[in-house]
Amino acid sequence: MDKYVVTVSREYGSGGRLIGKKLADDLGISFYDGELLSLVAKESGYTEDFVRRNDQKKTQSLLYHLYIGSQILPASDMIFIAQSRVIKDLYNKESCVIVGRCADYVLRGFDNVINVFITAPLESRIARVRDEYGEQAENYRAYLLKKDKNRIAYYNYFADDAWGKVQTYDISVNSDIGIEKSADILTDYIKTRLGDK
Amino acid sequence: MDKYVVTVSREYGSGGRLIGKKLADDLGISFYDGELLSLVAKESGYTEDFVRRNDQKKTQSLLYHLYIGSQILPASDMIFIAQSRVIKDLYNKESCVIVGRCADYVLRGFDNVINVFITAPLESRIARVRDEYGEQAENYRAYLLKKDKNRIAYYNYFADDAWGKVQTYDISVNSDIGIEKSADILTDYIKTRLGDK
Repeated sequence: MDKYVVTVSREYGSGGRLIGKKLADDLGISFYDGELLSLVAKESGYTEDFVRRNDQKKTQSLLYHLYIGSQILPASDMIFIAQSRVIKDLYNKESCVIVGRCADYVLRGFDNVINVFITAPLESRIARVRDEYGEQAENYRAYLLKKDKNRIAYYNYFADDAWGKVQTYDISVNSDIGIEKSADILTDYIKTRLGDK
Repeated sequence: MDKYVVTVSREYGSGGRLIGKKLADDLGISFYDGELLSLVAKESGYTEDFVRRNDQKKTQSLLYHLYIGSQILPASDMIFIAQSRVIKDLYNKESCVIVGRCADYVLRGFDNVINVFITAPLESRIARVRDEYGEQAENYRAYLLKKDKNRIAYYNYFADDAWGKVQTYDISVNSDIGIEKSADILTDYIKTRLGDK
């Protein structure tokens, strides 16, 4: 079978990371989420801690950078560039699942890339974040909407395209059917697609 | 099993109607696409032919209606209202698959509604429209992009929301895996969801 990459985009609290992990296990391929960051650190020359703190953050406004008089690209832009290089290297090297980080955009137009999106209703996401991830928030609804907003801003800034357009993805799933079953359906879809080639 | 409705939204030429039909057959429930129009004619008092000609058309601009001095709602608005009533009646009456017509929006917030979206790459849609539907066009690319534009305008006008947001749908599928297999995956998803209730 040819090499291929599955990108997983997801709403915060939808269980997208868990589904991506199970997907990689079921398909017998590598999995990259936070794992990507140490590769990015190596590529960019930043420390892993610095990369982690700037991961998936949108750059400040241009005005801000004019104000502080930056001569070079802001750190989050540099990290995005390094990250894109790492994603393309992985694409050339091995079959894998990559979670987030605009991987669908970075690999747009490349062969053998299957884009997945995981959604879940707000109530389900609140329950997961509170009960399974154990995250603390005064107002979970506001907390998640802020997370959504940041994720959208990050994508729209770096990918230069609207986040969450259904046509961007080969398959999307509302994870209310459960982590296992969501992964099963995605595996079924992906295996069928790959079998065509 | 409780009554439920599956709404199918789709890009033109993605095979969404065929997939919806197979889905209804596999689930053993009714199927409404063009079939809806005769019910709408009965509800609205318009002739079926008139309904058909105004089906899924966006209303002209307000300026146009001020210009021609309309005192009543334009026909396409009246038809949309009648259509929404028919869709809600079907929801109360029987389990079914409904293709298009903003059914996902009309039934938003209702229980036991599963929203499906069918996509396909432009090249696949061109091939299907030309070779399977036998439609004639000088420039298929422009022809399909115009169809997309009309569909988006129709949804955005009547549904008062953006068309094609991935979060709107419980599952979306790029139909390049084939009509049969797409329907199989959707059936699998829907049966799992219904089994939960």
